[in-house]
Amino acid sequence: MMSQTVEQIGEFELIRRIRNLIKKEGVESPGVILGIGDDTASFLPRQGYELLVTCDSMVEGRHYLPEHISPFDLGRRAMAANISDIGAMGGRPLYGLISLGLKSDTELAYVEEMYRGFIAELNPFGACIIGGNLTTSGNGLFIDITLLGEVEMGKGVQRSTAKPGDVILVTGYPGESGAGLQLLSLSSSRPELKAHPLIKAYLSPAHKAGEGAAVGHTEFATAMIDTSDGFLGDLGHICEESGVGVLLFAEKFPVSENLKRAAEILGKEPLALFMSDSDDYELIITCSRNHVAEIRSAIASSFPGPVSEVGRVTEREKGIRLVKADGSEEEIRARGWDHFSDGCIR
Amino acid sequence: MMSQTVEQIGEFELIRRIRNLIKKEGVESPGVILGIGDDTASFLPRQGYELLVTCDSMVEGRHYLPEHISPFDLGRRAMAANISDIGAMGGRPLYGLISLGLKSDTELAYVEEMYRGFIAELNPFGACIIGGNLTTSGNGLFIDITLLGEVEMGKGVQRSTAKPGDVILVTGYPGESGAGLQLLSLSSSRPELKAHPLIKAYLSPAHKAGEGAAVGHTEFATAMIDTSDGFLGDLGHICEESGVGVLLFAEKFPVSENLKRAAEILGKEPLALFMSDSDDYELIITCSRNHVAEIRSAIASSFPGPVSEVGRVTEREKGIRLVKADGSEEEIRARGWDHFSDGCIR
Repeated sequence: MMSQTVEQIGEFELIRRIRNLIKKEGVESPGVILGIGDDTASFLPRQGYELLVTCDSMVEGRHYLPEHISPFDLGRRAMAANISDIGAMGGRPLYGLISLGLKSDTELAYVEEMYRGFIAELNPFGACIIGGNLTTSGNGLFIDITLLGEVEMGKGVQRSTAKPGDVILVTGYPGESGAGLQLLSLSSSRPELKAHPLIKAYLSPAHKAGEGAAVGHTEFATAMIDTSDGFLGDLGHICEESGVGVLLFAEKFPVSENLKRAAEILGKEPLALFMSDSDDYELIITCSRNHVAEIRSAIASSFPGPVSEVGRVTEREKGIRLVKADGSEEEIRARGWDHFSDGCIR
Repeated sequence: MMSQTVEQIGEFELIRRIRNLIKKEGVESPGVILGIGDDTASFLPRQGYELLVTCDSMVEGRHYLPEHISPFDLGRRAMAANISDIGAMGGRPLYGLISLGLKSDTELAYVEEMYRGFIAELNPFGACIIGGNLTTSGNGLFIDITLLGEVEMGKGVQRSTAKPGDVILVTGYPGESGAGLQLLSLSSSRPELKAHPLIKAYLSPAHKAGEGAAVGHTEFATAMIDTSDGFLGDLGHICEESGVGVLLFAEKFPVSENLKRAAEILGKEPLALFMSDSDDYELIITCSRNHVAEIRSAIASSFPGPVSEVGRVTEREKGIRLVKADGSEEEIRARGWDHFSDGCIR
């Protein structure tokens, strides 16, 4: 049986269905005074905590192709991007607002599956959806999520506070998601690529928000950012906002076997894939050399993967420099990646 | 000289320009710890206050036509819609997050003018923009705003708490904005209509957020809502959420001379224009008959226009009934307006 479309069901009935789905499948978070259903949502913030707030959009045709991703995975991706930002401050997600621009022929089942994706990412944190907006857009679908979170007062880890001399750590394997996306595009003409593990890395990204909170709790991180603009793009944000440079060691980069194989298929350098645009939601952390062990230990409590020391923070004048395997040094301009990236003014 | 387009200027340079504009023309709000420029924004909520949060989208071609509205007015409208929601809870706006989907040929000057519109609405409240997201959408432009506000603990005025026997008050002249929009569409073929005062009512809506806060402060309103879905649409929301019916008196409806003239031009009944879809951002307030004077006085402190007593709240079973000028009574179904309206799940 075909699912009804948004147009057939009507927007107010759609809202009723979504509200019921959230009530049934989502969790109830403490602090909520008014959830969905009034002019605004309302909640009571906890004393001693700062509130964090971020928003992020996904636009059909720009950030995803509907034929390549299920609505459930799309919902998860969109929410994970926001959760990752809260985590990169050392915070904990609390409440989400979902704004959707739907097409009139979008099916109810598609919308419901997106919400199941949002909820699947929020439930583990005891976080919930408290509001949003639904409209038909006439054009492509868009998802805009605002996520609120909290962090103990004064314990938020910013991107603007890295210091020369600090060590640069990165979790996991940056670049895998971006390579997965390229493989996914290629798989239209080469269906055997559909089973490549990096396509899964792209479709179901695993944020490190829990690890980010643990790192924040140590109070030893001098700066932290998630790699939603790619390793070099986000390191560039740290440089710009902290007024520092960095010296990177290519040999220390965590380039996975999967990424090397993908590089071969794509005819690209593994190093380029590692550094370039890729929303992996890994964490880049800077800290004093004396505190690397504590940071590693905080991350290891929930993440079994690698935490790699890939370089160190330098004076601003040094710029962004890379020491290659052969010992030669080269200046790289993080700005070069900007035009691939989304503009985030949060 | 032509303004540069978003594509020419690049997204990161665009963000820099917007950030500067906000810094220069916006106000600095108390409580902000981190504004634009990190993974998330961050702020310290005031003790003894609930936080309110709402979001609302405007989509090109769906909610506005670019040839009919300047980017400054568009920015004002989009922000006023959100401010109105905070006000309808009795709250005060604090912080905005702006998510924009731009076309690659959108001009920088257009985006800047939209931000001037946002800021023009926020500055009077000492409220500011603390974050957001910019992306190119490939399709039509969209604006999605999330607005945070605050209200003293327990003093938020909901839409779900109207009681049978309450009086129904409405501010100003609902229906004018919707009629103005219809005149605006007609003005393409009839340019003499461009000077009609209701077109201005549509283009520069005046929310009643200050008045909403004053009403909330009296603690005498049993329910309140803004008329962004039209008088009958929003009264229907009160009925549905409060589990009540209403009895309305057509003779008491504040139908302005301007609306009557517009009805003639449009070949419609003034009453129908008054009740139907129109985002005027007036307030519908319910209260005990004993407290009408206090509510009127709270509103009069800043709004010189009419506050009309248009009916009373009844038991749910009575439905939504209208007493016409000739004394006859008719049941009207607010649901009939739903499909014209935006779906708001906040």
